[in-house]
Amino acid sequence: METFNKINVRHIKIATKHGTINTPTFMPIATQGVVKGLTISEIGKLGANIILGNTYHLWLKPGLDVIKKAKGLHNFMGWRKPILTDSGGFQVFSLGKFQKTTDEGVWFSEPNSGKKHFLSPEKSIDIQLKLGSDIIMVLDECPPGLSSKKVVREAVRRTSDWAKKCKEYFTKTARNIKKRPLLFGIIQGNVYKDLRTESAKELLKIGFDGYAIGGVAVGEPRKYLKKVLEYVVPLLPRNKPRYLMGVGRPEELIDSICSGIDLFDCVIPTREGRHGKLFIRSKKFFWLGKKNKFAYKPEEIYKTINIGRVEFKKDLRPVDPHCDCYLCKTYSRAYLRHLFKIGDILGPRLASQHNLKFYLEMIGKMRA
Amino acid sequence: METFNKINVRHIKIATKHGTINTPTFMPIATQGVVKGLTISEIGKLGANIILGNTYHLWLKPGLDVIKKAKGLHNFMGWRKPILTDSGGFQVFSLGKFQKTTDEGVWFSEPNSGKKHFLSPEKSIDIQLKLGSDIIMVLDECPPGLSSKKVVREAVRRTSDWAKKCKEYFTKTARNIKKRPLLFGIIQGNVYKDLRTESAKELLKIGFDGYAIGGVAVGEPRKYLKKVLEYVVPLLPRNKPRYLMGVGRPEELIDSICSGIDLFDCVIPTREGRHGKLFIRSKKFFWLGKKNKFAYKPEEIYKTINIGRVEFKKDLRPVDPHCDCYLCKTYSRAYLRHLFKIGDILGPRLASQHNLKFYLEMIGKMRA
Repeated sequence: METFNKINVRHIKIATKHGTINTPTFMPIATQGVVKGLTISEIGKLGANIILGNTYHLWLKPGLDVIKKAKGLHNFMGWRKPILTDSGGFQVFSLGKFQKTTDEGVWFSEPNSGKKHFLSPEKSIDIQLKLGSDIIMVLDECPPGLSSKKVVREAVRRTSDWAKKCKEYFTKTARNIKKRPLLFGIIQGNVYKDLRTESAKELLKIGFDGYAIGGVAVGEPRKYLKKVLEYVVPLLPRNKPRYLMGVGRPEELIDSICSGIDLFDCVIPTREGRHGKLFIRSKKFFWLGKKNKFAYKPEEIYKTINIGRVEFKKDLRPVDPHCDCYLCKTYSRAYLRHLFKIGDILGPRLASQHNLKFYLEMIGKMRA
Repeated sequence: METFNKINVRHIKIATKHGTINTPTFMPIATQGVVKGLTISEIGKLGANIILGNTYHLWLKPGLDVIKKAKGLHNFMGWRKPILTDSGGFQVFSLGKFQKTTDEGVWFSEPNSGKKHFLSPEKSIDIQLKLGSDIIMVLDECPPGLSSKKVVREAVRRTSDWAKKCKEYFTKTARNIKKRPLLFGIIQGNVYKDLRTESAKELLKIGFDGYAIGGVAVGEPRKYLKKVLEYVVPLLPRNKPRYLMGVGRPEELIDSICSGIDLFDCVIPTREGRHGKLFIRSKKFFWLGKKNKFAYKPEEIYKTINIGRVEFKKDLRPVDPHCDCYLCKTYSRAYLRHLFKIGDILGPRLASQHNLKFYLEMIGKMRA
């Protein structure tokens, strides 16, 4: 059993040069400058008020020369609301043998072309400023879930060091920007209480516009999330935004919001949509906007279906009768299944849209 | 130099149970019950007033049991305007060694599963009636372009024979349908004048609601199209719709409309769109609606661009400044190129939409 308790839900406003973000909110992922398969009008209509881009990907493709000519990422992709950009650290470290990290930064080669690049704390900030991001993330080192304490301690040390460098470079460089973007620090420390505490304190000392909790949902068992929030959230200032990176399943979002988290991003709704897994509202989904406190099991909030299953072959009902996304208002489960069976790109497109609608509506209810 | 001469353009109305089709018109291809990647709302907004489905594909997937439960293809796919269904013959013959044709019909096995099926003239009509098609095509035999005269003669004989069987079965079976669909015959004969004439005369003797010219754009050099139209069109009754199957490039449509053709379908706009090839209006495109007669070279009507080319990397102009499709109103060439370079499905989706808009607008100008 989980507990929803409205009294702990925070409502803050984050002012950016592209408008105010009301929290709690969920950021659809537009890693490469597009929410996979969807237009910016569709994203806007789903109720997103901020999306997430990625420094690493956009740096390599389309490249900063293109973004610069377009006068920034917003113009390039036609999105007029806020954009948060991740620092690229997570992606670079995921390259494994293609990267080499020193205290100065990360050397890496593009897996396809072999072309070499160097990403440093300063470089990451520089790229994000050039992208025209509204919320810039510092470069951090994020070891995999359940890494040894020695590895995590070293990552925390480097993360603090790089955070300092990022702040310094940002302060110097963003000074002349009329409406300067926000800069968020990232707290590491994996599942270790002392390291989480150390990381949080050091970042607070440096001082940021907001604080992200990184290093969760990176391979450790899901149960650790609650512990990490217990360690970290009490240390964070009440007046600054809190961003839980890469999380998560609906019950994790609900639980984290009840712990005082404001911002989320996660690939789950779009990735699972692309694979034909769709979220469907259960009874207590509708309690989120109405009741102040209640206990629930996740399946009382939502269920998921795999649309490819034979049971949906002749199922003429909408995917979710309580959903007003285009898919649910227009097509049947049988038709969506058909699209997946013949491999038409309309299938992943409609399913991603549906799942994003589910996430954004859920978080909208939490906010209301 | 080609000539556009408005005096020869026909305007007829084809009444169907899902509304009236004004000609000349172009049918977007929804082979498997979906115009690849696009929603029915998008197809409607582009100005399509009829789409094309395929008997062979829909029979196998999702299967007639599913379509029957959905009360027809229109309901299943959510399209409320007319649908023309091709007979499935072309697809079955394309299976090569997986098919065996006799005078009774075609035995074939599904390439993936090896499952065996039998498609006869009667079966094809039966399936199309079950799909709830507005315009039903007879089963024909369509040999590849430039087949020997012997092969084509045999195909013409069988096509006439099957056309008779289709008409008989249709007359008997559709008698009890309240608003019966239309039945179109298909004229074969490849590039041979005598065989085209023979085929047309035999089909006219049987009598159909409309006449299609098949066996063009099936591998023969493009120059033969004009000849085939010269042979066949004068033989066709003025008061019956004329459908040129599978054609073609914009100049071929314009030329064929000037020869008195009413209906078209072609994969070119969507298939080329999916491969990043986009149609752009040239100066004389706008003459189509205004001038009664003029000579033109194809490039004076349109050009095509390959969006993947490096010259578009930083090109911030819309694909076509004279186009008001979503792509051209929202995104730049540079952004579309980026979508294709990262392999995002939004690219093919927007490009297909743009090209369909081009085709439908072009034919709309011819109609105006």
